[in-house]
Amino acid sequence: MQAPLLSISRRTRKTPFSRRVEAAGVKAYTVYNHMLLPTVFDTVEADCRHLKTHVQLWDVSCERQVEIRGPDAARLTQMLTPRDLSKMTVGKCFYTPMVDETGGMLNDPVTVKLAEDRYWISIADSDLLFWIKGLTHAYRLEVDIDEPDVSPLAIQGPRADDLAARVFGESVRSIRFFQFVHVEFQGKKLVLARSGYSKQGGFELYVEGSELGEPLWDALMDAGEDLNVRAGCPNLIERIEGLLLSYGNDMTRNNTPHECGLGKFCQTQAAIGCVGRDALLRVATEGPVRQIRSIGIEGDPVPACDELWPIIADGKQVGTVSSAAYSPDFGINVAVGMVRMTHWDDGTRVQVDTPHGMRAATVWEKSFTDRGNAR
Amino acid sequence: MQAPLLSISRRTRKTPFSRRVEAAGVKAYTVYNHMLLPTVFDTVEADCRHLKTHVQLWDVSCERQVEIRGPDAARLTQMLTPRDLSKMTVGKCFYTPMVDETGGMLNDPVTVKLAEDRYWISIADSDLLFWIKGLTHAYRLEVDIDEPDVSPLAIQGPRADDLAARVFGESVRSIRFFQFVHVEFQGKKLVLARSGYSKQGGFELYVEGSELGEPLWDALMDAGEDLNVRAGCPNLIERIEGLLLSYGNDMTRNNTPHECGLGKFCQTQAAIGCVGRDALLRVATEGPVRQIRSIGIEGDPVPACDELWPIIADGKQVGTVSSAAYSPDFGINVAVGMVRMTHWDDGTRVQVDTPHGMRAATVWEKSFTDRGNAR
Repeated sequence: MQAPLLSISRRTRKTPFSRRVEAAGVKAYTVYNHMLLPTVFDTVEADCRHLKTHVQLWDVSCERQVEIRGPDAARLTQMLTPRDLSKMTVGKCFYTPMVDETGGMLNDPVTVKLAEDRYWISIADSDLLFWIKGLTHAYRLEVDIDEPDVSPLAIQGPRADDLAARVFGESVRSIRFFQFVHVEFQGKKLVLARSGYSKQGGFELYVEGSELGEPLWDALMDAGEDLNVRAGCPNLIERIEGLLLSYGNDMTRNNTPHECGLGKFCQTQAAIGCVGRDALLRVATEGPVRQIRSIGIEGDPVPACDELWPIIADGKQVGTVSSAAYSPDFGINVAVGMVRMTHWDDGTRVQVDTPHGMRAATVWEKSFTDRGNAR
Repeated sequence: MQAPLLSISRRTRKTPFSRRVEAAGVKAYTVYNHMLLPTVFDTVEADCRHLKTHVQLWDVSCERQVEIRGPDAARLTQMLTPRDLSKMTVGKCFYTPMVDETGGMLNDPVTVKLAEDRYWISIADSDLLFWIKGLTHAYRLEVDIDEPDVSPLAIQGPRADDLAARVFGESVRSIRFFQFVHVEFQGKKLVLARSGYSKQGGFELYVEGSELGEPLWDALMDAGEDLNVRAGCPNLIERIEGLLLSYGNDMTRNNTPHECGLGKFCQTQAAIGCVGRDALLRVATEGPVRQIRSIGIEGDPVPACDELWPIIADGKQVGTVSSAAYSPDFGINVAVGMVRMTHWDDGTRVQVDTPHGMRAATVWEKSFTDRGNAR
């Protein structure tokens, strides 16, 4: 299937950066949290190369926030996740698998602790607000819940520190991974976190309201001209190489965090109050029967993975591929898949039933980026 | 903004009819409930003309179902809506505004009562499942909640009865508006309801699983060849002419059902158990201060309405336009807007601040279709 056209409407919401993104020549979008998310500027391959070499600005406004504020904020936030938040301090960001009462993934947001009684949950593509509102109402919790008008702008790439330092001051270089500070721009305080949906390093700036959007974009673009800064977006190739998961693609409500390889972010025994705790205690101890893996699919570049592709071994299905793209750097189709325990060991040879026919493939435990054998 | 390309992935889910829709030459999609929804086949104008003259098949699989089943199903369903469901009988479909604890709209689905203890809620574009799961868990209700694999296929247009009768039998002609029967196709029972997102009449067929999708599509296309049947989709012009609202476009969580002109579907006093009842009792009695209206915008065709356009009178903002399209049949840009009480009377002259400049406009209480003055 060739990329079709996208009909736009108010329902596919624009962002504070949309005019700049259009002016930068965005070629395609997806819709994410009922909002436009750019996907291609030049080609996916050229965007990937630039991201790994220079620095990019990403309009990731679609990472909407759910704000939880009030006396029960900490209690409610712990209800949502099997990650133990009891020692989370103000100024920290935690990647937090969020689960329902069966332990099924509802979202995999970054939770930002702004104050003892105030959190932002920076969400992937599902209306997590609705789940939180349902719990809050029925449990009569003392919190105020809303989607505030906050639009993250990501600064990603090896020159991200240099660019951010020029605009927000040298001190940003000392922000530690998944921590945030407040920076000032035109007299307004903004949250700047060292985080982002790439393995190239960088920041996410939480832009409140829409007025600062274009001035910030312009200031960063002007300051980074000699750093070769340009508009970019989460890159399909780079995120698969790095095994960065995508909710709705690589995991759904059918999966536990453990199946998604997110067990290291769960302290289920300690996460007292988590709605899914009972359901997850057993899998937390015994492990899952299938798990996310990196897959290398041989042969010519595969098309966009718009439905699950069966992984086959000895004539039987042993898993599914959920995301795939040809990686020029690794010289192979990189993919993300869910593989049964019988075939998940490093280096296991399998086949993948792609729209372009059956292909030889290999299962890897680590990401391509971490294995580090780029050409 | 010209229509950009849409990047597809597993997250923008395909449907049981996707291959037929592609073969029929779909030109554009939107993403709705994390699923592809076709928006254009020929041009929006030509699609509109065909819909009003012949009969179309619509892939509206994106109207996903939330299934509620169990001893507390009726109680839970009433918790969701200010519409009184106490007299709803099996076999009925009810259009049901669904609200949160503040009376804000969360969705505007059609609720289908399959059995005393089993409902399908056929949703607009929001993860209503998450709200329902939150309430169900926290209130410990005895129900099973899920998104079943059910994909509605709509048959819409003036020849819809003729087409459905050929495939499912003459008795379908006697199905009353918003009622359903079971029909048989290849030995399987399917729900066929007289409903749909157009003013041209027709049916929605609830297709369970994916295997029947293409056989059903083909059977209807073959049977309707001399009726000039073709692939279609919800049509922007026709739905605005008919004042059929779109959740996320014309109404959001910020609006009560009364603001949306849906007061006639609310019996708030009687809807005991509705989560939003307390919040809505006053507006149910006194009425809202702003309400949905049809708007005619003069001058050349306006572009796609991808953000709210201010409605201005006497130099002040008195409302917003949320959807607009040029209607060849009415010879004017038809629009949907939310207008303050001071300017909502039939025939009130206002201005609309469009991307193509300030335009003269008129506010109408009824839909263009109901006013019936097409050229």
